[in-house]
Amino acid sequence: MITIALDAMGGDFGPGMTVKGATLAVKENDQIKVILVGRKEIIEKELNLIFPKGHPRIEILHTDEEILMDESPILSVRRKKKASINIGLKLVKEKTVDAFVSAGNTGAVMAAAVLILGKIPNIERPAIATVLTLDKSQIVVLDIGSNVDCKPSYLMEFAIMGDYFAQYVLGIEKPRVGLLNIGEESEKGNSLTRATYDLLKDSKLNFVGNVESKDILFNKADIIICDGFIVICY
Amino acid sequence: MITIALDAMGGDFGPGMTVKGATLAVKENDQIKVILVGRKEIIEKELNLIFPKGHPRIEILHTDEEILMDESPILSVRRKKKASINIGLKLVKEKTVDAFVSAGNTGAVMAAAVLILGKIPNIERPAIATVLTLDKSQIVVLDIGSNVDCKPSYLMEFAIMGDYFAQYVLGIEKPRVGLLNIGEESEKGNSLTRATYDLLKDSKLNFVGNVESKDILFNKADIIICDGFIVICY
Repeated sequence: MITIALDAMGGDFGPGMTVKGATLAVKENDQIKVILVGRKEIIEKELNLIFPKGHPRIEILHTDEEILMDESPILSVRRKKKASINIGLKLVKEKTVDAFVSAGNTGAVMAAAVLILGKIPNIERPAIATVLTLDKSQIVVLDIGSNVDCKPSYLMEFAIMGDYFAQYVLGIEKPRVGLLNIGEESEKGNSLTRATYDLLKDSKLNFVGNVESKDILFNKADIIICDGFIVICY
Repeated sequence: MITIALDAMGGDFGPGMTVKGATLAVKENDQIKVILVGRKEIIEKELNLIFPKGHPRIEILHTDEEILMDESPILSVRRKKKASINIGLKLVKEKTVDAFVSAGNTGAVMAAAVLILGKIPNIERPAIATVLTLDKSQIVVLDIGSNVDCKPSYLMEFAIMGDYFAQYVLGIEKPRVGLLNIGEESEKGNSLTRATYDLLKDSKLNFVGNVESKDILFNKADIIICDGFIVICY
C-alpha cells in the first residue's frame, strides 16, 4: 500500500477538485491510500458527494490553516505552521506517508520542502521536474519553475538528479541528457548554456548535446535540462 | 515608389522561394520595386518560370558570393565582402534602396547591419523586432533573437525603440510597454526582469508592467520587451 498525503486546500479550483482527484485515485488503484489534509468540514462535504459513507482508503487530517496562491512563499511557510502544505510535508518527514502532492502555491511547496525535508547532500538547489509522455517514451524536464538565475553548477546538478530519476523511476538505461538551447552547436546560446555545456560534456553522464525546443518532441533526449525561467515563460 | 533590395540567396529554401516572393510582392503592390541580389543565372532561371519576359519592377544585381546558414556571422560578413547580405545593406547605406530584406543567416544580417549601417546613437545593441497581428491590433515584440545575456539597459533601449516603432510605423498613440515575465507582480522573474522593471517604471514610457506569455494574445500591451534567448527557445 502506498500512502499519499494530498493538499486538499491547494490549487486554483479548491477542495472540490482535489477531493474528486483523491476519489478517482483510490478507484483506479487499489494499492493507494490518500490522506486529505485541510479543513475537515469542507473536505467532508465534497467527499460525501461522491462517497456518502466515506471510503476505507481515504482519510482526512484536519487543519484550519492554508497558504493562498498569491502569498509570499517563504513568509507564509514560516508563519503558518499548521498550513496544509507544512502538515503534509511533515507527514513525509516522519514517514507516516510515502509522498505529498499539492497543486497549491508552488513556491510555498518548494520552500516548505527545503525547510522540512532538507536537500540532498551536495545539491545546491531543489528542482521541479515533469515527465512528458510521448508515443512510446517518457522525457523528464527540469527545472520547470523552481529556480531562476541558475548557475551552471545548478544545471549540472539538475542533470544528475534527472539521471537518477530516469534510471530508477522510469527504468531508462543510460538516459540521454540534453541541454535546452537555441541551437545544436556547442557555442550556441547564452553564457549559462555555454558554461553548462562544458560541464555536461566533461561529466560521466550520457550527454547528447544541445536540444532545441522543437526537437524535444522528436525524442532526442530522455532528460531535458533548463533554467526554470525559460520554461515557465512559455 | 519603394525600392527594396532582397537577398535572393538567403533562406532555408533558396532562390526559388525568394524570387517567387518578389514576384508576389510586385503583383500585390504596384508601388514596390524589388532588386534581387545574388547569382544572376540562378535568379534569372527562377524568374523566367513566372515572368518569362522579366518584370519592369524587378531588377537583378549580380554577385557570386553568399553567406551560408551555418557560417559564423561576423567572420563571414568580414571575409565575404561581396556576399548578397553585404551588397544589399550597402545599397541601403548609399540610399539606392529604401530597405533590405533577407531570410538568410540572421546573425550575419545583424552583424553586417551594425558594420555597414552602424547603430543609433546611445543604443548599445541592435534588436530584432516582429509584429504579431491579432484580430484588431498589432503587437511589437523585441528582441526576438539578436541578443542573449541582455543587461537591463539593453531591454530599456529595446523598449524605447519599440515605442518609436509602434508610434511612427504602426500609428499607435502612447503605446503600452509590457515586460515579458513569469508573473505580473514586480518582484516576479529573474534578476534581469526585476532590474528592467525598475528602469521601465521610472521611465517616461507608458509602462504597463509585467506580461505573461499567455497574456500577450489578450492584448495587454502594444510592445513586448524580452531577452532574445527566451523567445527563440520557443
